[in-house]
Amino acid sequence: MSIVLIFKGDASPWRELLVKKLPNEVIEIHPDVKNKDAVRFALCWKPEKDILLEYKNLEVVQSLGAGVDHILETQTLDQKTKLTRLVDTNLSHDMWEYLLVAVLQYIKNIAAYRNDQRHQTWKPQRYRTIQETHVSIMGLGKIGEYVARKFTELGFTVSGWSASRKDIAGVKSYTKEELDAFLNSTEILINVLPLTPDTKGILNKELFGKLKQHAYIISVGRGDHLVERDLLEALDAEMLSGAMLDVFAEEPLPKNHPFWNHPKITITPHVASLTNFDSAIDFIVENYRRMLSGQPLLHVVSQEKGY
Amino acid sequence: MSIVLIFKGDASPWRELLVKKLPNEVIEIHPDVKNKDAVRFALCWKPEKDILLEYKNLEVVQSLGAGVDHILETQTLDQKTKLTRLVDTNLSHDMWEYLLVAVLQYIKNIAAYRNDQRHQTWKPQRYRTIQETHVSIMGLGKIGEYVARKFTELGFTVSGWSASRKDIAGVKSYTKEELDAFLNSTEILINVLPLTPDTKGILNKELFGKLKQHAYIISVGRGDHLVERDLLEALDAEMLSGAMLDVFAEEPLPKNHPFWNHPKITITPHVASLTNFDSAIDFIVENYRRMLSGQPLLHVVSQEKGY
Repeated sequence: MSIVLIFKGDASPWRELLVKKLPNEVIEIHPDVKNKDAVRFALCWKPEKDILLEYKNLEVVQSLGAGVDHILETQTLDQKTKLTRLVDTNLSHDMWEYLLVAVLQYIKNIAAYRNDQRHQTWKPQRYRTIQETHVSIMGLGKIGEYVARKFTELGFTVSGWSASRKDIAGVKSYTKEELDAFLNSTEILINVLPLTPDTKGILNKELFGKLKQHAYIISVGRGDHLVERDLLEALDAEMLSGAMLDVFAEEPLPKNHPFWNHPKITITPHVASLTNFDSAIDFIVENYRRMLSGQPLLHVVSQEKGY
Repeated sequence: MSIVLIFKGDASPWRELLVKKLPNEVIEIHPDVKNKDAVRFALCWKPEKDILLEYKNLEVVQSLGAGVDHILETQTLDQKTKLTRLVDTNLSHDMWEYLLVAVLQYIKNIAAYRNDQRHQTWKPQRYRTIQETHVSIMGLGKIGEYVARKFTELGFTVSGWSASRKDIAGVKSYTKEELDAFLNSTEILINVLPLTPDTKGILNKELFGKLKQHAYIISVGRGDHLVERDLLEALDAEMLSGAMLDVFAEEPLPKNHPFWNHPKITITPHVASLTNFDSAIDFIVENYRRMLSGQPLLHVVSQEKGY
């Protein structure tokens, strides 16, 4: 019985941490695996296409991130294999801190002043206060709900959109069918959706057209949520006032991509929340132990829904 | 008996608001004043040098801002004239929101990413969380105390320095004599001091040398707190990692000032907190009524201390 790490990138720091916590287990890095049939638990980050087919006796495929799109899009899992994702309160909290600065820099005109500074231009503008600001969150899963609560606590007005209605104190919840009403009331749109066939390309021309005039977009979901050309058109048509993006269809964002020099786009290099080694390892070890003892796993993903 | 408005800039919007609240009073704008000897209350914003000497019977000089340096530096007030300043909870709160985004954009590397974006550079860096961040506030007056409380509530570690020791829950308070100890523990320095002869030029080479290596400076006090050349030298020597400045010795900041193009300086055009007309007018009217009825005035400034 053994564990395999299948990573795009270097898995060895993760292996070292796991070996410390589970000194009696065989823990190997793909493709250097002695007996693939003995592997029951796979820890994956952006695995190559169909690589998991080499492991016949997998019981658990654990994503190293909160999303599983990098697995569902590349692998064919049979129904007896459980797919689990990493849920880390630290990740949700870090995401909130990023979203807070994203919203504040917008309502305080910080990006505009940064452009003004380049042109040696002194141009004071009225700011908006937290009290005067409404944020609209797409996705009220673990992260979205946490973020919605935090924004509410700080005095923002908060709406959220999700497949089913959510009961979160102070948050106006819209269901899947109420998307248009949600969008019509939106001036700052925060995307924390999971990437699924349903949500791919959801940030598109049609959606932008339903927002309030001059809405602002903040996306920390996945790059493929966004139709890049539609964003550029909506910004140039002054339908949107700007965007702050942490995720992109291709990462690193390619040289000469039109986003780089766009004055209304603020780019951060996929840093809204970075995996914390310690808490991630504890989570993975816990799920492994649950598998061994036959207890219910933490944060199993529906392969059909994708979250 | 009358009120005079003595402003650098257009005072007429303020006069209109005051007339609505005090319809039976004579309210005039300097120099168009029929009987200067009848003026007992002067509302001032950056008055010209010694202009108040023309008003012999002034009882109250009300600053239109939280600071009175613009009055004390230009006027000779006799001891029977009371100098009052504007204290507006909204101003303190707005200041806090500005300082929050100033600190967050620093610990989340937003300014660094903005520079990277100009050079089409994708360079993720570890962020610091609120929990891991210590902010040190110079000045624990009305604004400083409010800001210190808010940062503490949000989970920051907070220290403060002020003339006398302050008892603010969760805030480590340093007195005037303990400046060195305060500075030695400082990694993010927030300046909300009043401008007085004691504090003029306080942000200088010597002070920067006592901070932790690579400290960050945020100044929303007054431009004259800062010795500009010393800041440039400390940044270029990598003694400091950066600065976010909202106030300058000369405003608007002159064209070709070296701050404009400095990659480690973020400039905002004196917008950390903007006077809210409604609440300022209510405050001024209240102080005027107190003068008439002989009650103690709100927020009288010590002419000696300057705050």
